[in-house]
Amino acid sequence: MARYDFASDNTAPAAPEALEALIAANSGFTSGYGTDAVSARGAEAVRALLDADAEVRFVASGTAANAIALAALCRPFEAVLAHQHAHVCTDETGAPGFFGQGLGLVGLPGASGRIDPAGLAEPLGQADVAHRQSPAALSLTNATEYGTVYSRDQLAALIEPAKAKGLSVHLDGARLANAAAAGFDLKAIGPLGVDILVIGGTKAGMTATEAVVIFDRALARRFDARLKQAGQLPSKGRFYAAPFIGMLDSGAFVARAAHANAMARRLAALSPFPLRHPVEANAVFVEMDEPALRRLHRAGWFAYRFLDGSVRFMCSWAVTPESVDELGAALKAIA
Amino acid sequence: MARYDFASDNTAPAAPEALEALIAANSGFTSGYGTDAVSARGAEAVRALLDADAEVRFVASGTAANAIALAALCRPFEAVLAHQHAHVCTDETGAPGFFGQGLGLVGLPGASGRIDPAGLAEPLGQADVAHRQSPAALSLTNATEYGTVYSRDQLAALIEPAKAKGLSVHLDGARLANAAAAGFDLKAIGPLGVDILVIGGTKAGMTATEAVVIFDRALARRFDARLKQAGQLPSKGRFYAAPFIGMLDSGAFVARAAHANAMARRLAALSPFPLRHPVEANAVFVEMDEPALRRLHRAGWFAYRFLDGSVRFMCSWAVTPESVDELGAALKAIA
Amino acid sequence: MARYDFASDNTAPAAPEALEALIAANSGFTSGYGTDAVSARGAEAVRALLDADAEVRFVASGTAANAIALAALCRPFEAVLAHQHAHVCTDETGAPGFFGQGLGLVGLPGASGRIDPAGLAEPLGQADVAHRQSPAALSLTNATEYGTVYSRDQLAALIEPAKAKGLSVHLDGARLANAAAAGFDLKAIGPLGVDILVIGGTKAGMTATEAVVIFDRALARRFDARLKQAGQLPSKGRFYAAPFIGMLDSGAFVARAAHANAMARRLAALSPFPLRHPVEANAVFVEMDEPALRRLHRAGWFAYRFLDGSVRFMCSWAVTPESVDELGAALKAIA
Amino acid sequence: MARYDFASDNTAPAAPEALEALIAANSGFTSGYGTDAVSARGAEAVRALLDADAEVRFVASGTAANAIALAALCRPFEAVLAHQHAHVCTDETGAPGFFGQGLGLVGLPGASGRIDPAGLAEPLGQADVAHRQSPAALSLTNATEYGTVYSRDQLAALIEPAKAKGLSVHLDGARLANAAAAGFDLKAIGPLGVDILVIGGTKAGMTATEAVVIFDRALARRFDARLKQAGQLPSKGRFYAAPFIGMLDSGAFVARAAHANAMARRLAALSPFPLRHPVEANAVFVEMDEPALRRLHRAGWFAYRFLDGSVRFMCSWAVTPESVDELGAALKAIA
Repeated sequence: MARYDFASDNTAPAAPEALEALIAANSGFTSGYGTDAVSARGAEAVRALLDADAEVRFVASGTAANAIALAALCRPFEAVLAHQHAHVCTDETGAPGFFGQGLGLVGLPGASGRIDPAGLAEPLGQADVAHRQSPAALSLTNATEYGTVYSRDQLAALIEPAKAKGLSVHLDGARLANAAAAGFDLKAIGPLGVDILVIGGTKAGMTATEAVVIFDRALARRFDARLKQAGQLPSKGRFYAAPFIGMLDSGAFVARAAHANAMARRLAALSPFPLRHPVEANAVFVEMDEPALRRLHRAGWFAYRFLDGSVRFMCSWAVTPESVDELGAALKAIA
Repeated sequence: MARYDFASDNTAPAAPEALEALIAANSGFTSGYGTDAVSARGAEAVRALLDADAEVRFVASGTAANAIALAALCRPFEAVLAHQHAHVCTDETGAPGFFGQGLGLVGLPGASGRIDPAGLAEPLGQADVAHRQSPAALSLTNATEYGTVYSRDQLAALIEPAKAKGLSVHLDGARLANAAAAGFDLKAIGPLGVDILVIGGTKAGMTATEAVVIFDRALARRFDARLKQAGQLPSKGRFYAAPFIGMLDSGAFVARAAHANAMARRLAALSPFPLRHPVEANAVFVEMDEPALRRLHRAGWFAYRFLDGSVRFMCSWAVTPESVDELGAALKAIA
Repeated sequence: MARYDFASDNTAPAAPEALEALIAANSGFTSGYGTDAVSARGAEAVRALLDADAEVRFVASGTAANAIALAALCRPFEAVLAHQHAHVCTDETGAPGFFGQGLGLVGLPGASGRIDPAGLAEPLGQADVAHRQSPAALSLTNATEYGTVYSRDQLAALIEPAKAKGLSVHLDGARLANAAAAGFDLKAIGPLGVDILVIGGTKAGMTATEAVVIFDRALARRFDARLKQAGQLPSKGRFYAAPFIGMLDSGAFVARAAHANAMARRLAALSPFPLRHPVEANAVFVEMDEPALRRLHRAGWFAYRFLDGSVRFMCSWAVTPESVDELGAALKAIA
Repeated sequence: MARYDFASDNTAPAAPEALEALIAANSGFTSGYGTDAVSARGAEAVRALLDADAEVRFVASGTAANAIALAALCRPFEAVLAHQHAHVCTDETGAPGFFGQGLGLVGLPGASGRIDPAGLAEPLGQADVAHRQSPAALSLTNATEYGTVYSRDQLAALIEPAKAKGLSVHLDGARLANAAAAGFDLKAIGPLGVDILVIGGTKAGMTATEAVVIFDRALARRFDARLKQAGQLPSKGRFYAAPFIGMLDSGAFVARAAHANAMARRLAALSPFPLRHPVEANAVFVEMDEPALRRLHRAGWFAYRFLDGSVRFMCSWAVTPESVDELGAALKAIA
């Protein structure tokens, strides 16, 4: 097998628990468009994970899931507040504006991917004027783009003032498994006031599937029609729900993420380059100058500069200690 | 196993050839967003199937694939011509208008799902006035919604006048496998002048995957960005390409569809109810009054009235002769 | 002056009352974007006309006003029910779908432009399924496209069942002045349950201006931002409000429309061609075969076939009895 | 008359030349939707102004005109490059994204409202990747938001590298009259390679009207349908064309702007507060601390902080030397 690819956590295959559940679900006849028994069981599993009486849907794409969620929370002449380096702002080719008919994105500052509460206060305090898209939703990400993990209290410090101003709240959980493995209590999400949560399956070691969790039931009206129109209501729903069942029922969802997080810590400990951000989940960001990065590339390792200029290494469920050590050695060699 | 569900051809699981290829692809590390070797091999397989030097992408949803194709061919103030009962007109919750920012759909008449060339002539002949969405694209479906199959010449009779008026052409191939199994030559699609083709994987016995084939290379510029923004650029592309590889390399794509078509003919032969449309692919439409339909439902078979008032039965790759005979007997009993 | 042009009621200039008010408003400095005193006075005049405590905005375009109203009432995966020949369905180049991100339009039947209550019952009774855009709003037009006028009770017979199903109601009043002149009580609109009304200024004899009346105050939140984003929040608002002030304060709004209606009746009485629809407002639709229409064109009169195949003549505030008699004589000559 | 309002150049009424032309056009019957003789004459006048064989349309709103232009030049998954404080980026409530279905806006730096060529080079040099909206158009503004005026050569230094990368060019001429009065040669716009120009009528002293000039004729196909769908094809086109005729034929378009520019220079000379930007057109930006601004407000003058923190005063065609002197005295009193 080729050398492990640390460029992203989506370079990995699906974990056995996910794939086996998919194979198991591939039997017999089921009704379409998420009305099947597998989808129902998957939704139950997600509700149990969150201890929440919420609507759950399974979709193919995290980009679409986030964008659809934001479009459900925000009208075109309104704006979403998000960290300036959040995936919705920087890596989705404008999907929120596409699904949300031009809704605005306001990028907020904050160290290591967490929104600074003081930075949030400013747009919340602005006058509601007609020539500007005023905020209607707050979008959070946990674990963050920089591999840090919001605590329950840190989220509350952002959600409470936003809710006080009438904003809705979206949580991008592309790496929610890694946050959970880092100690974040998933059962806190509902009580915190999150309206729509997207749980990443893909990066957690599944095939391509994401769960959309609608805590605010009023938003669920005609949500299937919303998904269908947006190309995210799978006819063979079982293939999207089954991997979640496999990963959640077995506990692999958190256990596999815990392994990924441990691998990141192992890599961080080996790195001769200074860490740019705390290593709380499955990412390692290091400060590396251009000649060193070129030496790394020449040594056959792919990695790229992130938005803050540091170099990112992502550990998925599938990375092994040996791979990490191999990369660690390579880093030492080029340092 | 429960009784076979003839309500749709998406009630079936994935065929062994598709699933095994997916499992085989689930190994090692690959780059993301369709840049992986599995996606490249899948694209080659599709090009070989069509004997065409075209761009190929794999996406999760046929609804999205069709809508994205139409949005690429037609501006918001223009219209798509399609059969009035085409899937894009009736079953996609307005997805073309959503992805196409309000592009118009003009429904054309035609027996048994095929557009009547005379009916096409009318909108092609209309003056180009500002208060109406003038046609910019023609959308065709093969096999049609009513289980009939356009011949090469029948398609040419529609495409040629459309092209002469400057329209682009989209072909919805959700059931292209069934058309091929019925004798339609897939290698004719490119020479006919189709600009974008969507090949259905889901209904052909795969997991959820569709191939978008861009014959007009000028349309391919930034197509990945288009897909990404629309939530249809899968990060783990191998899971979308692999089923196509499995089905195409083995010949199962057409062979499995041939079986489905044969099952439809078998059912048609058993039906005591008059056939509404010629049985050329994998669908059987019968004339059945309301009391009879209720008796069928009471007997435990689900089927529903289609847009033309007839009752539809779909045969997938997974239907067995025994299932067909069982349904045939049920139909006799309630006739 | 050239022969009067009966092709539309927008071929006429602005009435003196409108233009004089515009000229009077062209003095001194005012704040922008509808916050000026002229806009405030205009809104008061509209509220008085309707005897309603509603939000009022003035915009440039009836097409935009209707589309923005429908977008405010209906989400992209939902549909608007309207008469199949309503202006929003046939003459606005898909504007509702453009402003409404693909919202659906469901055309309903009904004689002479009025929706048949039985035809409304069908979509209201349909199951709410994900693959179809279910209705969220009812769009009505008074006077109708065919020059008929809904009575208060006729509107109630449509609005009540729609409201009972949770739909919102839009009223296109492009020719509301003509309806009022025909006896329709404008003060009934609010109590009937209309959520958003668009009052046509242009066809009523003003320069290009329309009033958007928001009866449901909950819809008014951030409506100025909605208008601004949609290019319909005029910086120099006085030019849109002033013509309404001039026409409403003087009573010319209804009086000029009464004249137009009388001219239509006069023309109807002179027509040797059978009337296709009752002449209740300012339109005359006649049955005329193609050779006769060609003779009319050769005689120098422009008129065109409408959607129902009849030939339409529109009378504006500016048409004179002499012009009508001249056209009447021309019709006799070519009959 | 109340004290002059320097908050914007749209607080002024229409200039006599514009209003008289509007009144003159209000006679007789004309065909609709821009097909009338007044609109044709207006287009000729604009072509003469620019010495260009271009398509010309008249619309109601500058916000809409800009957004429609950008939507014509840029697909939803692409981006527009513009000065970070350009009107399209900051004051149009996201209209480009609304009309352009989520198209991206990339804000570029540059002193005093002019884009820094070095800042433009960066996005032009970026790789064309799928997860980001790559640039497809460059949007320029002359005179700029900060009252400076690009020279022909300065525009060329931006347009040439953009064109070399395949981008289209939009020019927002909301204050093009002021640029012309400052010496900018309007006949250079076509040869520079601008694809779509919007000429502001409103701020130039007209009623609400803007001219859209389409230099690239290929973009003009079905442009009327584009405008109609977007609510910007006025039925009574004469009211939008006539003010341009009045202002252009008389020379008032530039002459009135020259006066406004002179008033700005007069104000600048009187200001005890340091000027933030060169006064090249009709705007004066001064550095003023918060207590001083509050004193100004208490003295009855409305002015507000602009995006760069300075305080803006705009001079329209209607400002008098006496008004300027009165403001100048007020500024001295509160300094």
